[in-house]
Amino acid sequence: MDTQDLTRMLHTKNDSKIVLLVADGLGGLPVEPNGPTELEAARTPNLDSLAAQGVSGLSIPIKPGITPGSGPGHLGLFGYDPLKFLIGRGVLEATGIGFGVNQGDVAIRCNFCTLDANGNICDRRAGRIPTEESAPLAKLLGERVKIPGVEVIVEPVKEHRFVVIFRGEGLGAAVDDTDPQKTGVPPLAPVAHDEPSKKTAGIAQEFYSQAVKVLADQPKANGLTMRGFATKPHIPTYEEVYGVRAAAIAVYPMYKGLAKLVGMDVIGAPGTLEEEIDVLAKAWNDYDFFFVHFKYTDSRGEDGNFEAKVKMIEEFDSVLPRVAALKPDVLIVTGDHSTPAKLASHSWHPVPTLLVSDVCRPDGCTTFGEKAAICGGLGQFEAIHLMPLALANAGRLEKFGA
Amino acid sequence: MDTQDLTRMLHTKNDSKIVLLVADGLGGLPVEPNGPTELEAARTPNLDSLAAQGVSGLSIPIKPGITPGSGPGHLGLFGYDPLKFLIGRGVLEATGIGFGVNQGDVAIRCNFCTLDANGNICDRRAGRIPTEESAPLAKLLGERVKIPGVEVIVEPVKEHRFVVIFRGEGLGAAVDDTDPQKTGVPPLAPVAHDEPSKKTAGIAQEFYSQAVKVLADQPKANGLTMRGFATKPHIPTYEEVYGVRAAAIAVYPMYKGLAKLVGMDVIGAPGTLEEEIDVLAKAWNDYDFFFVHFKYTDSRGEDGNFEAKVKMIEEFDSVLPRVAALKPDVLIVTGDHSTPAKLASHSWHPVPTLLVSDVCRPDGCTTFGEKAAICGGLGQFEAIHLMPLALANAGRLEKFGA
Repeated sequence: MDTQDLTRMLHTKNDSKIVLLVADGLGGLPVEPNGPTELEAARTPNLDSLAAQGVSGLSIPIKPGITPGSGPGHLGLFGYDPLKFLIGRGVLEATGIGFGVNQGDVAIRCNFCTLDANGNICDRRAGRIPTEESAPLAKLLGERVKIPGVEVIVEPVKEHRFVVIFRGEGLGAAVDDTDPQKTGVPPLAPVAHDEPSKKTAGIAQEFYSQAVKVLADQPKANGLTMRGFATKPHIPTYEEVYGVRAAAIAVYPMYKGLAKLVGMDVIGAPGTLEEEIDVLAKAWNDYDFFFVHFKYTDSRGEDGNFEAKVKMIEEFDSVLPRVAALKPDVLIVTGDHSTPAKLASHSWHPVPTLLVSDVCRPDGCTTFGEKAAICGGLGQFEAIHLMPLALANAGRLEKFGA
Repeated sequence: MDTQDLTRMLHTKNDSKIVLLVADGLGGLPVEPNGPTELEAARTPNLDSLAAQGVSGLSIPIKPGITPGSGPGHLGLFGYDPLKFLIGRGVLEATGIGFGVNQGDVAIRCNFCTLDANGNICDRRAGRIPTEESAPLAKLLGERVKIPGVEVIVEPVKEHRFVVIFRGEGLGAAVDDTDPQKTGVPPLAPVAHDEPSKKTAGIAQEFYSQAVKVLADQPKANGLTMRGFATKPHIPTYEEVYGVRAAAIAVYPMYKGLAKLVGMDVIGAPGTLEEEIDVLAKAWNDYDFFFVHFKYTDSRGEDGNFEAKVKMIEEFDSVLPRVAALKPDVLIVTGDHSTPAKLASHSWHPVPTLLVSDVCRPDGCTTFGEKAAICGGLGQFEAIHLMPLALANAGRLEKFGA
C-alpha cells in the first residue's frame, strides 16, 4: 500500500479550497560565501508573512541528490511517485506542446532530416530548419498521410522537431528508434519487440513511406527519423486519488500538459502571472484544487542571472495578497526543483516550501528562504507527501484505521 | 529487506531495560496565533530535564498527512509497518475489549437488531439496548450456540455491539457483511468469496439460525447482523523481531489488546497512572522491554479541552521521576499520534518524542515541546524507526555487515 492508496481510500469531500503555487525552479544557491540565495536576497514581505502564519520546510523533489526534469518534478509535487510513473520521451514531447495524449495512443518524437539522392541521411536535423518552415510541413503530413484503421496526428514542435501520434486499438510502444545517429546511411526500419508493437512498427513504416512522398520536393526536410516511441502510463486522476476537482493555470504548454496527464482541467489562456491570478479568481467556485504555475523563476535561473531571478521572485511575491484575498483553506508555495543561477540549470537542492492553513502547526519561522526553512516544522520531506498534507489540512482525509 | 528484517537478524541480548512511555494523543496545536500547544503550555520540569539529557525529535505516525486510529498508531510505534500489517474490523473490535485473537480465528463484529414478525429488520441497533441488557444476551449466545467442529466464543462489547469468534481449522474471512444497512428486509445470508471462507459462511449461517432461536422471546434484541469478518494478520512477536521479553502496562482494553497482538505480556490490572508505575516497578526484573500507556492526554484532546489536556500532561510529567528512578537504559517518551484540543480529534501532526540513554547524542534541546523538537537530533522520522533506535541505544543490535 502506498501513499496514493491511502489517499484513494481515505479522501472525503467538503467545501475547502486548496491552492498550490509553484514557482518553477524556486530554490537557489548563494553566489558568494555567506551570501544569500536568490530567495533570501529577494524582498518578499508577503511570503515572509505567510511563513510566519504557516509551516515551512524543504521539499526533496525525487530523492536526495537527484535533479529532476519538469516532468518528474511536477509529478512528484502532484503526489505521483516519479520513480513509478515514468513518462516516455514521445509522450513528454507531446505533453510539452500541450497535446493531450490518450490512454493507448503511441506518441513518437520525430526529426525532419535531409536525405541525399540515394536515400541516405546527409543532415540529421534538416539544416535546423526554422519553425516557420517546418510547422507547415508537419501540418501537411497530418493532412496527407492516411493509414487505414489508425488516426494519424502530426503536431509541429520547434525547428526540425515534430510529434506523431498514432491513435488506434492494440498498439504497443516497444519499437526501436529509426534514427541511426549518423549520416551516410538511410533511416532504420522500425523494429518491434512484441506483438502489439509489431502493429505499431507496421504503421510507422507506412507513415514513413507516405511521408517521404509528401516531402519529396523539399530541399531540406525531405526525410524523417522517429524516436522515443511511448504510450502514456496509466495515471490515475486527481479525482480518483484525492477526490478533488482540480484546475491548472499555466502559461507554458509543458505544464498544462503535465496537469492534463493527472486529470486536471487546464483553464484560461493567461499570458502573465497577473492574468493567471485573474483566471484563478474567476474559476474560484468551480474547483476544489488549483495548481498555478509561474515559469520565470526557472527561466532566469537557467539564464544564470541571479539578479533577474531575484526580480522574478519579487514579482511572484507581489501577487500573493491577491491569492490570499480569495481565502484558500490551504495555501502552498513551493517549486518543482531548484534552479540556482550559479549553476544555470535545474538542481537537486531541496526546495523551500510553505503551507498555511487554520490547522497547521506554526513553527516560529518568520521569513521564507532556504536557511529559515531548515528549521521549519515540515522538515525535509519528499515532494510526494505534499498532497496528503494539503488534503489533511483541508479536512479532506479520514482517519486511517480505528 | 525491511527494518524488521534487520532487527530480526541483528538483535542480541543483554541485561538492558527499555521503557516506552506513550502519552496517547500527546501532540497538539496552539489555539491562538503564536500561542503554545498543550505540551508547550504545560509545566513539565521532568520532561524538560529529560529533553536536556537526551535527544528529541518528531515522530510521523504513518506518513505525512495521514491521521492514524489507535491500531495503526500503536503498530507503528511498536515498529510494525502499519501499511503492511492491516487489522480487520472484527479483530480490532475483539482487540478493543482485550480479547486475545489467535492466529486462524475469525472475529466478527456483530450488532443486535430487532426483527418484526416477518423476520425483517425494524431496528438495526435493537433500540440501542443498554449494555446491562445486551451483555447477558451475548453471554447466553456463547453458552447456548453449539456448532460441531468449531469453538464459538461470544464477547459483549457495549450497547447493541458484541463480538463473535469462530475458533477452528481452515477458516477464511472473505465473507460479506450480513447487515443490509437498511430496515424492512431480513439480514443477508453470509456470502463467501473463497473455499476456506465458505466454511466460515456455513458456520455463520448456523450461528444465526441457532441465535435467533435463543433470542426468540427478546422484545428488542431478537436478531443480529454480522460485519467485518477478519482474521488476525500474521504478526511476528517482539521476541522474534527484537529478541526482548516485552510487557505491556495499560488501563484500557484496546491498548492491552494491541500489545497482545505483537506478543507482549499484559501485566497487572492498574486503574491509574500511579498504579501503572507500581506495576512497572514490580515487574522490573522480569522483562527487557516495557510499554506503558497513558490514555487521558488523548481523552482530553478528544474532548476539545485544552486546559484539561495540559493538566493530564502535567500529571504524566509528575510520574517521570519514579520511572527514572528505576534507571532504565533507554527511556522513550512519545505518543501514537497528536490529538489537538483545537481539533477535538486525532490528527496527522508529528508527535514530540524524546529518547534518553547513556549513548544517545544530546542535541541542545532544553525543553520538550513541538517547536523545540523541530531542531532535535532525532529529526522528523517515521514512527517505525523508533524500535531500532531503542534497541541500538540499549546495545541490543549488532553491526550490519562487516
